[in-house]
Amino acid sequence: MSETDTHGLQRRLRLSAAAEDSPVFPQDRFDAWLAGRSAERFRVSRVPFADLEQWSFDSGSGNLRHRTGRFFSIEGLWTPADGQDAAQEYQPVIVQPEIGTLGILMKDFGGVPHFLMQAKMEPGNVNTLQLSPTVQATRSNSARAHGGSTVRHLEFFAGHGPGGTGRGRVLLDVLQSEHGSYFLHKRNRHMVVETQEDIPEHEDFRWLTLGQIHRLLRRDHLVNMDARTVLSCVLPGAAGPAPAGSSFADAVLHSLSRSAAPRHSLPELMSWLTGVRTHARPPARPVPLRATAADGWLRGPDRLERRGGGPFTVVGARVEAPTREVPSWTQPLVEPTGTALSAFVTARLGGVLHVLVEARAEPGCLDGPELHPTVHCLPGGTHPLLDHVLGTPPSRVRYDVELSEEGGRFHHARCRNLMVEAEDAFPLDAPATHRWMTLGQLARLTGFGQYVSIQARTLLACAPAAV
Amino acid sequence: MSETDTHGLQRRLRLSAAAEDSPVFPQDRFDAWLAGRSAERFRVSRVPFADLEQWSFDSGSGNLRHRTGRFFSIEGLWTPADGQDAAQEYQPVIVQPEIGTLGILMKDFGGVPHFLMQAKMEPGNVNTLQLSPTVQATRSNSARAHGGSTVRHLEFFAGHGPGGTGRGRVLLDVLQSEHGSYFLHKRNRHMVVETQEDIPEHEDFRWLTLGQIHRLLRRDHLVNMDARTVLSCVLPGAAGPAPAGSSFADAVLHSLSRSAAPRHSLPELMSWLTGVRTHARPPARPVPLRATAADGWLRGPDRLERRGGGPFTVVGARVEAPTREVPSWTQPLVEPTGTALSAFVTARLGGVLHVLVEARAEPGCLDGPELHPTVHCLPGGTHPLLDHVLGTPPSRVRYDVELSEEGGRFHHARCRNLMVEAEDAFPLDAPATHRWMTLGQLARLTGFGQYVSIQARTLLACAPAAV
Repeated sequence: MSETDTHGLQRRLRLSAAAEDSPVFPQDRFDAWLAGRSAERFRVSRVPFADLEQWSFDSGSGNLRHRTGRFFSIEGLWTPADGQDAAQEYQPVIVQPEIGTLGILMKDFGGVPHFLMQAKMEPGNVNTLQLSPTVQATRSNSARAHGGSTVRHLEFFAGHGPGGTGRGRVLLDVLQSEHGSYFLHKRNRHMVVETQEDIPEHEDFRWLTLGQIHRLLRRDHLVNMDARTVLSCVLPGAAGPAPAGSSFADAVLHSLSRSAAPRHSLPELMSWLTGVRTHARPPARPVPLRATAADGWLRGPDRLERRGGGPFTVVGARVEAPTREVPSWTQPLVEPTGTALSAFVTARLGGVLHVLVEARAEPGCLDGPELHPTVHCLPGGTHPLLDHVLGTPPSRVRYDVELSEEGGRFHHARCRNLMVEAEDAFPLDAPATHRWMTLGQLARLTGFGQYVSIQARTLLACAPAAV
Repeated sequence: MSETDTHGLQRRLRLSAAAEDSPVFPQDRFDAWLAGRSAERFRVSRVPFADLEQWSFDSGSGNLRHRTGRFFSIEGLWTPADGQDAAQEYQPVIVQPEIGTLGILMKDFGGVPHFLMQAKMEPGNVNTLQLSPTVQATRSNSARAHGGSTVRHLEFFAGHGPGGTGRGRVLLDVLQSEHGSYFLHKRNRHMVVETQEDIPEHEDFRWLTLGQIHRLLRRDHLVNMDARTVLSCVLPGAAGPAPAGSSFADAVLHSLSRSAAPRHSLPELMSWLTGVRTHARPPARPVPLRATAADGWLRGPDRLERRGGGPFTVVGARVEAPTREVPSWTQPLVEPTGTALSAFVTARLGGVLHVLVEARAEPGCLDGPELHPTVHCLPGGTHPLLDHVLGTPPSRVRYDVELSEEGGRFHHARCRNLMVEAEDAFPLDAPATHRWMTLGQLARLTGFGQYVSIQARTLLACAPAAV
């Protein structure tokens, strides 16, 4: 959340987070409502690349593109050698230069802020239907908004551009990165807009408090990536000093607040990150998809995959959605080969909960290394601190939920998200790659682009759901 | 300057800015000192491309590269059509993925902060010798720093990376963009480090107060680009309310401070910029230099230039520096075809000085549109508000100094920098492309990367020199 006049908002967000239920839409009606959204209307099946309509591999570059050049393409990405240990690397990458809008509408009911959430289907979603922001729109949708768009509620999020006259009060409006292991320089516009208008009811939308959403964040594959990343920018935070011997949940709320005393000042942390960025390996560059064969990426009739195994494959899919305007289409999807893992190791330093943050580059990130969870592993990957996380005794595991990535591009991209309390044996002297930060310090940096990675933002959004 | 604990620093920077002279190095000795640095030791002459040693045009791509792949290269840049008015465009671009370090050392003398500035020669500098930061170093220099580097004082700026132990206190450490019309995704690390150590004297270095530097910023082609961009991040700001009917200089100091009441809040301005970024044309991509022929960029024996005229050409140069370790070398230089222009139009809104800022993309910028001066024109270019600036009566022109760009890559790249007070006829309702901001709002955003363009940062650094 940006700097100016956030005090009143923080207080209101605390109210909303404290409301674990609401008369506006009682939590015990949630499951019936979601079940009524009828995921059966959507069916996804694999097809060989040859059966993709409108999509084809370019004869020169080998890139997989839509006939119109729209939507996205699968190209190659080349990461140069770093001049020391790391050799050059090639991998396929999703190129989608348009900036999407992820927007959540906020409104007071009975003095408590509620957020308008949508039950939305995406072809690659685990469980098909997930809880999503009020709006997920592409730039093309967004540009058409004034001329009458088919994306409901978009008018609240599209008018703040050049010359626009928005409706409602903008609380948050920032570009944030998406997965740099899969996307080239992808960014999304994150918005939270407060309204006092009467919003017509619709069966796919419900108003929920932060407290209700946090309860839903304890369930596997329910709150989607787009919702999580916007929610990571509207976090509550307790007022006042840290209560001694407080619960983990209370320690999280205190760590999110401005009054939490951090181990390192924000300028010190920024200097550390700037240093890591300065000495990082040179940025990756797009190359023809064909060039990724140098690293064993080969295309068969059904999939593009890495010989000997890799974190993902690219497949063709047919999507059937009989009740939609376009009842059926084909498209490529990126399919991870297993479950990823993201974990924050936490420790109370000087009585204040800190998380251990890693500064790490992913090949497709725009601005070099970003702040990541303590441990983030792609499927099949490893990490020096992974054993610490996996060896944490159950009594110290405070959050352990499997969530999934955006179902419009990914097929069943699962990630296990963990928050654990460091054991006594855990080394509190951070390695050069890591620093201890309060959750509030991370949260402040989400007000600016390209600092906090999407994996860390997901854990930040989930932190108030830890118990 | 970052957020935390800037209050004491602001007060000290005000002291330094108020000191227009100093017993440490009296201002009246400056010219003799600079003349004694003997620019005659450096001679630059044009050579045909065929006479460039180690540099050649790649037979496939046409890119101009060093044999080792080091330093930088000249490649092509393709900007896609925007789907509305603007057609696709090709141009040559400097590709230099390494992050350079620009660092200034600060130290108290008699309770007043002084800054260690260097008289430094660059082949393409106007007047050869200009006032530079304590350190200008490439990443390769910087990585070698602990092993004994030839760059004097680098040890103060190189140790803050991963695992390093820096000397002194880091006041500022942020990556900032460089000219997006010439460079692809170029960024530099900006650092200000305070020390209490005794620094050995050296004939090329002198300690100056901010007040002394501001006086030197009133002279053409004296303070170099690297110094200006670091100085834009360490600005003084008056404490207390705006004095009614104050001088322009006092209004600048007040506008730089936190107490200045802005027309728009920072979150509102960030939302406007995010909107402009979201609706900007798709990002440019590197292409072979050969491809720029499509827009008329053709290579002759002596220069690469655009048929029908363009803002710059690329030439070959031989540099002779008999007193250096390497007494002579050849390299390409980018040579603008005329003088660029940057101007801030200012107005007092609610008694507070504001500058009119444009959100505008340059093809090579990393993160889309940045905040630019009211008007910025490349040589031969134009701008809807240019006539307003050029028609300003002399009594309202508060700053008018010609400065130049980095002489390691550019040959005599001149830019006229202006700050003018808006005439009564000037439209105070900003167009969609522009917003009024206080100088302090701009200054706060220089604590983060990719928000304030280098042209705006130069004017920000020069603002305290306006009269």
